[in-house]
Order: sequence, then C-alpha cells, then structure tokens
Amino acid sequence: MTYFRDNIESLAGYTPGFQPARTDVVKLNTNENPWPPSPTVMEALRRLPDEKLRRYPQPMADDFRQAASEVLGISPSCIMAVNGGDDLLTIAVRSFCDQWRAMAYPTPTYSLYPVLARIQECDAVEIPFAEDFGIPEALYEVDASLVVVCNPNAPTGSFISPDELGRLAAALQDRAVLLIDEAYVDYAETNCLALTAEFDNVILLRSLSKGYSLAGLRFGYAVACQSLIEGMTKVKDSYNVDAMAIAAATAAIRDQAYFHENIEKIKAQRAILTQDLRRLGLDVRDSRANFVLARCPNGDAADLHEALARRGIYVRYFPLPHLEDKLRITVGTEAQNAALIGTLKELLRQ
Amino acid sequence: MTYFRDNIESLAGYTPGFQPARTDVVKLNTNENPWPPSPTVMEALRRLPDEKLRRYPQPMADDFRQAASEVLGISPSCIMAVNGGDDLLTIAVRSFCDQWRAMAYPTPTYSLYPVLARIQECDAVEIPFAEDFGIPEALYEVDASLVVVCNPNAPTGSFISPDELGRLAAALQDRAVLLIDEAYVDYAETNCLALTAEFDNVILLRSLSKGYSLAGLRFGYAVACQSLIEGMTKVKDSYNVDAMAIAAATAAIRDQAYFHENIEKIKAQRAILTQDLRRLGLDVRDSRANFVLARCPNGDAADLHEALARRGIYVRYFPLPHLEDKLRITVGTEAQNAALIGTLKELLRQ
Repeated sequence: MTYFRDNIESLAGYTPGFQPARTDVVKLNTNENPWPPSPTVMEALRRLPDEKLRRYPQPMADDFRQAASEVLGISPSCIMAVNGGDDLLTIAVRSFCDQWRAMAYPTPTYSLYPVLARIQECDAVEIPFAEDFGIPEALYEVDASLVVVCNPNAPTGSFISPDELGRLAAALQDRAVLLIDEAYVDYAETNCLALTAEFDNVILLRSLSKGYSLAGLRFGYAVACQSLIEGMTKVKDSYNVDAMAIAAATAAIRDQAYFHENIEKIKAQRAILTQDLRRLGLDVRDSRANFVLARCPNGDAADLHEALARRGIYVRYFPLPHLEDKLRITVGTEAQNAALIGTLKELLRQ
Repeated sequence: MTYFRDNIESLAGYTPGFQPARTDVVKLNTNENPWPPSPTVMEALRRLPDEKLRRYPQPMADDFRQAASEVLGISPSCIMAVNGGDDLLTIAVRSFCDQWRAMAYPTPTYSLYPVLARIQECDAVEIPFAEDFGIPEALYEVDASLVVVCNPNAPTGSFISPDELGRLAAALQDRAVLLIDEAYVDYAETNCLALTAEFDNVILLRSLSKGYSLAGLRFGYAVACQSLIEGMTKVKDSYNVDAMAIAAATAAIRDQAYFHENIEKIKAQRAILTQDLRRLGLDVRDSRANFVLARCPNGDAADLHEALARRGIYVRYFPLPHLEDKLRITVGTEAQNAALIGTLKELLRQ
C-alpha cells in the first residue's frame, strides 16, 4: 500500500541536470554562469553578523525588495522574493490552479511545468509551438487559469517580443494570469517589465541563478501588480528566503556594473559558439539565452552526448519529441567553448 | 474580479510573529535562541568558495545528510533536508492530503496547520486536547490521511511520550501518516527518533531554528523510512535548500558539544523563569520547549502584552479560545528573563 495521493505515487518527478562531483570537467549542461558572482556578494556574506542567523529573516526580504525596486524603477510592493524561480512557479500553480482551473503553456519548454500540474492535480494544456516559436494561436483562446510562457524559452533559446506578449495578456485579461518566466531574460535585448504596470494579470519570474552567477543561492523574484503579490504572499512560506540569501542577493542586484559586464561577455561568447557549431555542420537557431540548442548532423544527439561525457564535456540531452536530435549547450568561457568545439570536431570526423 | 482560487482569495494567511526593527529590546516573542550559533557555522560561511554560489547546490543536500546520519546513527536515505520546518509541512500536506484526504491534529497547536489545509483544500479535523494534553482519544480513530502532532507542542510546551505516540502510529498504520513536529524537541528529555525505524508511517520534523540558533538560515529536515522520503522528494523543489545553508547547517550539526551546552543553558533558564513567573502569581505549566505558556492573574493577557511591548519587552499573545488569557514567553538569557520579571512585577503591582 502507499500513503501518497495517487497523482504523487504515479509521478516520475523532475530530474535535475547531472552535477558531476569532479571539478576538472567542462560543465555546459545546466545553464550556470561560467564566471563568479560579484565580489560584493562574498563581501556581504563575510560581513553578515551571526545575529542575522540567530533571528528569523525578514518575511518579505525587505532589503532585497528595496534594492530591486531602485534598480527596476518600480514600487517594492510589486516585488516578492522567492527561493529560486521554481518556488514562484509552485506558488503560482497553488494560487491559480486546481481540478477546475487548468494551466497552459507552449511546448517544448521547461520540463518542470507538467510536474507541478500533476502535483496540483490540475490539467496541463500543452500547445506545440509553431515553426517560428511565436505564440501559438490556440493560446489566445485557451481555457486555463494560468498561462505560462518561458521567454526566452528553454530549451529553444527563442524569444517572443513584449508587444506580442502584451497582446496575449490583453486576450487573457479577466480570465487568466499570464506568468512570463524570464529566468533567461538577462541575455535578451529587451524584457516584459512594462507589462506588469499595464496589466493586472501579468507576473514576471526573474532569477539570480543565471545572469548574477548565483545558482547556488536559490534566489529569484516575482514582479506583478500589488494585488497579485499580496495574494501569492498568503501562499508562500512565511520565511521562504533565508537571511544569508537576502544579504547576498541584495549585494548582487546593487552591483549593476559587474552584472552588465558579465552579461556582455556571455553574449559575445554565444555569438562565437553559434558560429563555430554551424561551421561543424550543426543546425543552430539564434539564441537569446545563455545556451544554444543545436541539431546534430544525422540527428545522432544521444550518441554525441555520451561521447562528449566520456571526454569530460557535459551538455544536456532531452530524450523527448522534437528534442531527441538536439543538444542544449550552455555558453561557457572562451576556453570551455573551445574545448567543446575541439572535441566535437574530433568526434564528428570519425 | 479575482484571479485567485476561492480558497486562496478568502484566506487570511499566516501571521508571522512581530519582528521589531530596533535591536535594543527584549525579544521573547518568536522562540528564537538567545545565544549565537556555533562559531564553526560562521567559519564555514567565511570559507565557502564563490564556486559554490555559482553552481546549483546538491539537490539532496548530501553533505548535510551525511553529517546528520552520523549524528543520529541512521541511514542518509532516511533524511531529507528542507527549507525550514514549514517547507516540510507544506510538502507533507501536498503529498498526502486533498479534497478526499483530510489532515487532523490536536488543538491548540501551531497556527500554520489550518492555513496549509485551506491552501490544499483538504479538511482540517481539529480535535481539542484534554486537560492533561495527552493524545485525544478521537485521534486514534480519526478519518484522515495525515495526522500531525506537534511535540513538544506549541504554544503549550506540553510533551507526549514516545511510547504514547508509538501507540498512535500503530493505530494509524495502513491508514494515515503520523507527522511528529519535533521543532522544539531539543529542549525535551527524549524524542521519537526510534519510531521512524519501527513504523513505515512516521515522519519526524526537525528544525535547526531553535536548538542550533539558526532561525535566519531556514533549515530543517525530515526523518522517515526511505519510501516516504523518496515520495516526498518528488514533491519538494529540486533545489529547496541553498549552498550556503547546506554548509552552515552541516557545520552546526557537527558541533554537538556546542549544541548540548546551548540547550542546557536554556533548560536552566527555563526552570528559573517558570519559578519566577509562578511567584508573581502567573499559572505556568512545566514546559519541554524553549518557551513557557503563562496564564496571567485575572486573565488580562492582552493588556499585559501591550504594557510589556510599550516597555520594549516583546512576548506572544494569541487572541484565540483557551489562549486569550495567556502569554507565550520565549526563554531568553538570564538578563532578558530578569528584565521581563522586573517589569512584570512593576506592572502587576499597579
């Protein structure tokens, strides 16, 4: 017998990307930033008094909220800190979805969305992207309470313009919340921040994992109108982010100079990596994220993934429809990208 | 109109204890430990390389799991780290409860339980404690999938023996999970660890917030048989605890000498505080936690709470049945307790 609910018992669960214990590898499989976080982050942690650990943290991460509000030019009341972007996705599904209120999203996309729907026992309406990776027509009319669009999308790296997403928000208004998962938006040319002021049904998800090199910190935030923030606050854990994370995240977002420099380095490497992969015969779309999705020559992605791993180079392979002939490759440092290209050249020659 | 589910829209939400911004106050309202965490915790944080922040953390907090397994003498596979005890409560309610599967608990108790039931839209079966604060008879027969017993109980400080909870686990077996919330167990003389080896339906909740002086860290853990841990792992966020928290918690649990010394100091102060309050005419039960529940002379707890706060002394008042004539007072340092007693003496003389 099982003590679990049926939907949990039969659930496969989300599989996090492989984390090799060895550090002498080229790790391009989980979209981490190859450069370290701002030195001000480590400085803030060293200065943290033990009194901050002894006491409960700020329930609404006030210090971070204030810093983020200054950087973004919006009210602190429109910001909610979360324990990584996944925490916000969980909060949103628990806030807006149930057996009678579905979740909808275009596919392929972040593989956690259907897992959260299963746990909440709500329908997951999956609408395939068209060839151009724009918003599928059916999404404008979808019968759902929560629509999630990952933008830039993972694992395709494709990007939908804020104007187009504004039209979707307008079509969904009074019917559904539009959550725009901007975990990778730091690497795009623009973003949907303005939509949160224009629409009462738009939630942005932001993460410090990628652009701020803080995947180990578990820190993200929501931007939305005050009433959405207040409602979701009732659903989140009272103290969902810890005192150290608040201090580190606050220092990180205040150092915008370091942040922009870091982002520009990745964009430059992304351009080189894209070109190099194309030269080797891989089919690579332009990406607006810190990874590229590359179709392998002859579609032998699984074999290539294995062969790379045996040589200490880790990239991500998804054995899923439309993805099983492709590899998702995180943009690394110049040296990491060169190591990948060199090894690929060797493997493809064989 | 609202975008939220009805149960969320109508929810009052959990109210965290008041956190005064000023530090020159006597803060005995949220059961924090008055002494700092082990110096090894701050040392571990200072030594943490920025590489740990850049990369995703261990999904199962392996370092902590290993350390805790050595301290507890159990397998790491029976341990799951959580982002504070509240994270585990949320995971358990999402794992075991829904519209057809109720949650049950004796009252009065931790006021978060009914909030989590409301969010999950499951029934919350509340069974009042008898005068002796033992297990209510009706709990053995209750129609629920998850039974939660806070032990030592908050806010009463009362304690149920492991033998009695073992009988409850046996009665519930094959029907329901028994989650024993041991957030305060470090201050009791014994605990229910042995029950997790004996029963396949027992989950312990442990917290580092109180005994280890790490409320700001958000770190707790579950102990249960492997199949319960594996099922709940599917429901938790993939990376629910961050890299800094794992490092700090691992250092804290490895320093058992500091931990035991800290606990003994609180127990000694608890005995003195209990005696002093009784001398002032307050009715105080023996407590097995790091707080005491004190019935005020003439039952004027609300006024006394206000008067203390005006003098910079914060204790907790619950305007709830059976509690509205009482104050919950966290055991502080010798100086904090003396300040409370001195001020109470003055106020009660008026």
